[in-house]
Amino acid sequence: MIVTVTPNPALDITYDLPALRPHTSHRVAAVHEQAGGKGVNVARVLHALGHPTTAVLPLGGPTGEAVRADLDRCGLAHLAVPLAPGASTRRTVAVVDPADATVLNEPGPELSTEHWAALLTAVRSLLPAARALVLSGSLPPGLRPGAYADLVRLAHEQGVPVVLDADGAALTEALDAGPTVVKPNAAELRHATGIADPLDAARALADRGARTVVASLGPDGLLAVTPDGTWRARLPPEPVVRGNPTGAGDAVVAALAVALAERSPWPQALARAVALSAAAVRAPHAGRFDRQAYRSHLPLVQILPAGPSPRPGSSGP
Amino acid sequence: MIVTVTPNPALDITYDLPALRPHTSHRVAAVHEQAGGKGVNVARVLHALGHPTTAVLPLGGPTGEAVRADLDRCGLAHLAVPLAPGASTRRTVAVVDPADATVLNEPGPELSTEHWAALLTAVRSLLPAARALVLSGSLPPGLRPGAYADLVRLAHEQGVPVVLDADGAALTEALDAGPTVVKPNAAELRHATGIADPLDAARALADRGARTVVASLGPDGLLAVTPDGTWRARLPPEPVVRGNPTGAGDAVVAALAVALAERSPWPQALARAVALSAAAVRAPHAGRFDRQAYRSHLPLVQILPAGPSPRPGSSGP
Repeated sequence: MIVTVTPNPALDITYDLPALRPHTSHRVAAVHEQAGGKGVNVARVLHALGHPTTAVLPLGGPTGEAVRADLDRCGLAHLAVPLAPGASTRRTVAVVDPADATVLNEPGPELSTEHWAALLTAVRSLLPAARALVLSGSLPPGLRPGAYADLVRLAHEQGVPVVLDADGAALTEALDAGPTVVKPNAAELRHATGIADPLDAARALADRGARTVVASLGPDGLLAVTPDGTWRARLPPEPVVRGNPTGAGDAVVAALAVALAERSPWPQALARAVALSAAAVRAPHAGRFDRQAYRSHLPLVQILPAGPSPRPGSSGP
Repeated sequence: MIVTVTPNPALDITYDLPALRPHTSHRVAAVHEQAGGKGVNVARVLHALGHPTTAVLPLGGPTGEAVRADLDRCGLAHLAVPLAPGASTRRTVAVVDPADATVLNEPGPELSTEHWAALLTAVRSLLPAARALVLSGSLPPGLRPGAYADLVRLAHEQGVPVVLDADGAALTEALDAGPTVVKPNAAELRHATGIADPLDAARALADRGARTVVASLGPDGLLAVTPDGTWRARLPPEPVVRGNPTGAGDAVVAALAVALAERSPWPQALARAVALSAAAVRAPHAGRFDRQAYRSHLPLVQILPAGPSPRPGSSGP
């Protein structure tokens, strides 16, 4: 089983419109809503891949009820920690017109130290059965930036590998605890290190404690700095993969978690991650992917060594 | 007691932003949400004016639960008719930046004939204690446009006067039943009659069955075609009343319902409606008004006869 933790989940609402016209009223014809937050999206991909998964997340209020109802409807196993009375899970609203998406992210309710402790207890109860732990997305207001380090240490105590997908201090403050894999995107990598070159920046994150760094660089694919070597993995530039990039990073995280759980070699793990990411771009909502596109992209992924000096360490992730 | 009916209520969500930039992501710092829909806004104004009121509305799903929680929190008495299992009350999202509001209106769940019958039963149960009935806002998908006529007839059977605030066919199909007052705005008046001149258009609506027509013309105030005479009521052009016009029409409806309940003379009713509408513009959210502005605007309202030929009928609304 792979456990995903989403400290700041959301009800993701999508409105499809012919065009968003600021400062006017719109009748929305098509409303889509689903349980969201990066860890939930990862769980959705894992479930679709046929991997047993449990999503751990705080939920509260009517919006939390809507998230729970969607998880039930989709058959996604979850362990929900209640929020404080009166607190309600946040929403995100994506207004999608033919040009692109306009996104409105609510901040989410505060999570107290007490509720964070309840979430740690929930994760601890699942770790004996877990083959990988995924920590994904923003930390809610009220939590100290080092909160993810608690979970990394908890997993290491049980010998469970960890994929961390976070930004800013939530990422950098967890490096000391030695997450097995971190997956920043290009902007997050630059933001966390202040270094413009992705390879130098990824190496800097590895020096600060991450055992492996897999950076997602959009159409340029993945860059992986691992104990076994450094690789670039990408699809050929043509044909261009068009669609909705929301959730592509979550598909990468799902593939990396599967690789950790199955102890796959890195080149295979990266190929699957690139193909799954492209298949997610082809699906309209986060956490979904186009199975046909996954199958057809997989043999096309190019894996190239990207650096001369593998660091000493065990082989495989 | 004044009963308000809101066939298509909503959870009104407001996001305050420094600027809405299409096709980018926004972190929303301030989220406001409240029970909404025109009839709910009217009930909120009536409650704030100290008039006993009961809001009748269909509610369902997690969003319906959030609407109910807000009504409870605000002390607004309500009689909720459950939606079909799985159906959820709609949302509206207003993104407010310093320039203006950008509004996204969900269509709302279908209301079946069976659920409409349950709503009629709920209203019937309240009519013996009612001094006025307010019918306000759009009809949900699935209802025939003549649905409001059922409620007008039900009220007339019990001798209860009715204010109807609706658009398009929901308005015109109810005229046969003889609503006591209809309150279109300028666009709705033109839309319903095809006549550009507001006075001619209001007279046409009266000819088609409305006993009184009170048209709200924005900064030009109100135009009333009544059995006792025709008036224009407005504030002086200076100083300009600035603020959020959402909910100003609902404040007019609330004032007209009070006038019907108290059998006030039309000039007094119109003065209160204009002052209350301006006070609503000064408040940030629909259904609220600035009490101080209400008191200070009331003596400034100008009431002028607007037409030569009062139709025969009883005096007062």
